[in-house]
Amino acid sequence: MTFTEKLRAAQDATGSRLCVGLDPDPARLPRPFQSKPLAEAVLTFNLALIEATADVACAYKPNLAFYEALGAEGWRVFEQTVAAVPDDRVVIADAKRGDIGNTARMYARALFERAGADAVTVSPYMGSDAVAPFLETGGGCAFVLVATSNASAPELQALVADGEPVYRRAARLAVAAAEGRPGEAGFVVGATRPEMLAELRSAYPDVPFLVPGVGAQGGDAAAVVEAAGSGPLLVNSSRGILYASGGDDFAAAARAAAEALRDALALSPRGGRS
Amino acid sequence: MTFTEKLRAAQDATGSRLCVGLDPDPARLPRPFQSKPLAEAVLTFNLALIEATADVACAYKPNLAFYEALGAEGWRVFEQTVAAVPDDRVVIADAKRGDIGNTARMYARALFERAGADAVTVSPYMGSDAVAPFLETGGGCAFVLVATSNASAPELQALVADGEPVYRRAARLAVAAAEGRPGEAGFVVGATRPEMLAELRSAYPDVPFLVPGVGAQGGDAAAVVEAAGSGPLLVNSSRGILYASGGDDFAAAARAAAEALRDALALSPRGGRS
Repeated sequence: MTFTEKLRAAQDATGSRLCVGLDPDPARLPRPFQSKPLAEAVLTFNLALIEATADVACAYKPNLAFYEALGAEGWRVFEQTVAAVPDDRVVIADAKRGDIGNTARMYARALFERAGADAVTVSPYMGSDAVAPFLETGGGCAFVLVATSNASAPELQALVADGEPVYRRAARLAVAAAEGRPGEAGFVVGATRPEMLAELRSAYPDVPFLVPGVGAQGGDAAAVVEAAGSGPLLVNSSRGILYASGGDDFAAAARAAAEALRDALALSPRGGRS
Repeated sequence: MTFTEKLRAAQDATGSRLCVGLDPDPARLPRPFQSKPLAEAVLTFNLALIEATADVACAYKPNLAFYEALGAEGWRVFEQTVAAVPDDRVVIADAKRGDIGNTARMYARALFERAGADAVTVSPYMGSDAVAPFLETGGGCAFVLVATSNASAPELQALVADGEPVYRRAARLAVAAAEGRPGEAGFVVGATRPEMLAELRSAYPDVPFLVPGVGAQGGDAAAVVEAAGSGPLLVNSSRGILYASGGDDFAAAARAAAEALRDALALSPRGGRS
């Protein structure tokens, strides 16, 4: 099964294009977890969130930084978190890795083979050498950073060389790296950049887009839905779901926030499951 | 002590500008390690290499990919490897991380605070937001990928926008991110790009340069020394030292390879300790 096929099946099963970002910040864990040892607290928090949202989210995206900050125990929690996601949901390891040949292959081994992720996020700064190794095994997807949601993103990404902005060149190199390889290339495009989203979708109707930046970062779900059209799309929310409540009702609050975003992201403009 | 001060002290103590890249590839471990459990084999290999080279290298650069490929055990080996480097040598966590605000801060915590690295490598694709969080604590250095050594590096890095190539814009944003912060910015410039090295050194006489790509990747040590002038410089070799011999004499062979490169990198053009 290709990544796009698995994604489509997960979206059909849940009626949802929502991806839940599992970025457990020790300083923001809900009350029931605050007295536990940190690694255990993070794992049980993640498991509760996955259980509470598994039928309203098609995907989960743990960001490696939050696990590495806990050292070796954190890496174990990352692997256990991935293992806890139902097999028919998609897992994206948000690692933003970018390194050359033999090194990138080690990252691919860590994230696809050992941890069992379906996709990883990859930085294009080193060029296609840094993307291709993630596409050598079947069924995986490398979501290449194209146009990110943060304030300083345009410093490099919006530069125009020979009439083409850098982010579009990054999109082209990602797609070219996937040619003839069993893996797929996707794009990371921030929800704060709906005009780039629309333009990229028009040029690449079948490429999966991972869109972070709704909620805490200011992106608007309706604008994303409008811009991304009917191609493969995953919209991520992390803090808006994880910390919907800091109290005992954190799981119900997370689920309610996930349901609301699922509805806002539905293909049918009137909400409800598409 | 700033990073540059610590680097200078390490270089004065060893008479060396050599950085040993600790990229332990399970498929290439010397014979004495091949029958051990993998994590233990990698750790003991690293400890033997550090012991064999500690008086001819001023720095060590473990690349995270090779540790993450071993999972949680690998992360522990990474932390133990950093801890085994003598306190007066420099450790660069080659992570090529690049993420925004709160996430980058988690990476900084993982690599500086928990693991105890002196410097990290950082990707500039997301702009200065992704660099600044690594400079918020004193004494640390963020080596920003500027002009990398790999074949596909020019795809984005050599694009020219408004008369300025992207790699020079990356250098500028790195230096700007360090302004007013306690940490320092350095540049990663591949040994295969001596003309860029010379040009960047001329523009940035005091910025520390980390230069990978001598040896296996084809860069020439003499050309690097010539191009980098007398500013702060670290030249990394990984495979040429780690796998100098695959037999029982691996440590002596690694030391001999390290000595030869130290001499080739000496400031005095006739070799010997500078």
